[in-house]
Amino acid sequence: MPELRKDPITGRWVIISTHREKRPNDFRFERAAIIGRELCPFCPGHESLTPPEVLSYRQNGGAPNTAGWDVRVVPNKFPALQVEGTLDRQGEGLFDRMNGIGAHEVIIETPDHARTLAAMSEPEIDRIFWAYRERILDLKQDRRLRYILVFKNHGAAAGATLEHTHSQLIALPIVPDFVREEIDGARRHFEVKERCVFCDVIRQDTADGRRIVLENADVVALAPYAPRFAFETWLLPKRHHARFEEAPRHEYESLARLLKTVLQRMDRALESPAYNLIVHTAPFAEEVGDRFHWHVEIMPKLTRVAGFEWGTGFYINPTSPEEAARVLRNVKV
Amino acid sequence: MPELRKDPITGRWVIISTHREKRPNDFRFERAAIIGRELCPFCPGHESLTPPEVLSYRQNGGAPNTAGWDVRVVPNKFPALQVEGTLDRQGEGLFDRMNGIGAHEVIIETPDHARTLAAMSEPEIDRIFWAYRERILDLKQDRRLRYILVFKNHGAAAGATLEHTHSQLIALPIVPDFVREEIDGARRHFEVKERCVFCDVIRQDTADGRRIVLENADVVALAPYAPRFAFETWLLPKRHHARFEEAPRHEYESLARLLKTVLQRMDRALESPAYNLIVHTAPFAEEVGDRFHWHVEIMPKLTRVAGFEWGTGFYINPTSPEEAARVLRNVKV
Repeated sequence: MPELRKDPITGRWVIISTHREKRPNDFRFERAAIIGRELCPFCPGHESLTPPEVLSYRQNGGAPNTAGWDVRVVPNKFPALQVEGTLDRQGEGLFDRMNGIGAHEVIIETPDHARTLAAMSEPEIDRIFWAYRERILDLKQDRRLRYILVFKNHGAAAGATLEHTHSQLIALPIVPDFVREEIDGARRHFEVKERCVFCDVIRQDTADGRRIVLENADVVALAPYAPRFAFETWLLPKRHHARFEEAPRHEYESLARLLKTVLQRMDRALESPAYNLIVHTAPFAEEVGDRFHWHVEIMPKLTRVAGFEWGTGFYINPTSPEEAARVLRNVKV
Repeated sequence: MPELRKDPITGRWVIISTHREKRPNDFRFERAAIIGRELCPFCPGHESLTPPEVLSYRQNGGAPNTAGWDVRVVPNKFPALQVEGTLDRQGEGLFDRMNGIGAHEVIIETPDHARTLAAMSEPEIDRIFWAYRERILDLKQDRRLRYILVFKNHGAAAGATLEHTHSQLIALPIVPDFVREEIDGARRHFEVKERCVFCDVIRQDTADGRRIVLENADVVALAPYAPRFAFETWLLPKRHHARFEEAPRHEYESLARLLKTVLQRMDRALESPAYNLIVHTAPFAEEVGDRFHWHVEIMPKLTRVAGFEWGTGFYINPTSPEEAARVLRNVKV
């Protein structure tokens, strides 16, 4: 059974994923080559290589767990957390832990092994967001869970171990640190100003213009004022709303359109970089409607200076957001 | 001039290092090969390739900036921060920034190009700690500075760009996030218990034994209860003290002895992994003597699943600390 453990000093929770327990020799295989199409568990016809699907979109019909799907969501075969069981919190002297209840799912974004998210059509990207939404709405009925993290690792340098394009979702019985920090920060701003800090950022940056990459009627793509990573880019809906899964249909369409263009421009300007994409949305059981603002963060992985930042939370960024936005504004696709 | 910028939502400060401003094409060269001995700026005889030294140990004498040194400290040729100037804090609507005042130095640990820290003798390692100490004591006289981060990236996967073994030091006009979190957490514990949380951890883990790797009279090496990384190992002095630079001589000796053994065991058990080593010590101007406890954290970089954790602050660790400690306790060097 995986375990969630809390650091007694910082209060940071981590998952100790004993399901995937690794002994020293196992780390060698991390460096192994990418699995080809023939053995790819995400390719059509290989449905039996994954656990049974929890959702699929099939424009042309077809039975579950057979080929013919357009998007397919399955539990992760090597889950960091497990769905079955009762949430059991325990102390052990100074230390706190709970059993690793949660869900870990994979959203297979397309049947095409070699296609990237940037190369998909807007309706195809839009459909992926709907899969996120449906899975979140389903999982949030589980009272044991407090947060769902939807993310995508693209490219080996960003942590992807399978080439076939996919996103992941981890549903958790706790609220992870980065969400907590954002919510606390947004609350502090709201207490002083009675306004959403994200709305204020959108307003100031739109008026200023230097950090804006691109916008459409519903969504703006900008380089944040204090980015941790070179070419870090945020996609924010212009209309204030705390939860990704409650956005109206046209916002997903607008987001798909903007995301496609941003990724295409990054591919062009930065030679198809590895990146992480993370959906930031409000926790389930908290009343943060007027101060939190859902959005998507894209972090290209361009430098190798990872280890230090990773361990300290202290970031050195070699590219100013004004320069990054200028490059991404002007690149021709 | 580099700039420090504060994220208006989380309050996190980042360095925008315009000195090293990178345009899209520059990132290509990040993937370039390691510089060989002939061109190594850290090798004896190449002293003119670095800025003039600020400290050197020369058992056999010799003029500054010539060969003959045992340890040599120089300003980083491509500093993330710069020493000259007045600290100037400015607002810009929602946003806060200050100019990037600080120091960025390199501690060249040995004249031998191919030697690793694990392969050095205990007195040689001890001498490196003394260089850290001397530089900290010197830099903390600068009233503009609030914190000094001493760290080491070993191996390309940990962010090292030069093979010749070295540590780095960044002196900052702010206290970085990870230090702030530790101090806040230690304060919360102290408010309730009136005891240092690190001392409590040492006491409980020593009695328990399962997470202890190794100890001597002054220092204990343990796998923390909630490690972010597989085989993460902390080295804590048994005697409570907030500041690394105020430790008595024999504690550096004991730390050198323990660190050498831990690194040798990691090399043996984990096939000479890349790692980050970070010295955690109290900020200069804060009264945290009874609740903060200096220590050293070692984070081997064994998995590629970096991007996600890096961007979210949420960690999945495939090896329990009990298993990691058992492996490192039993490996024969």
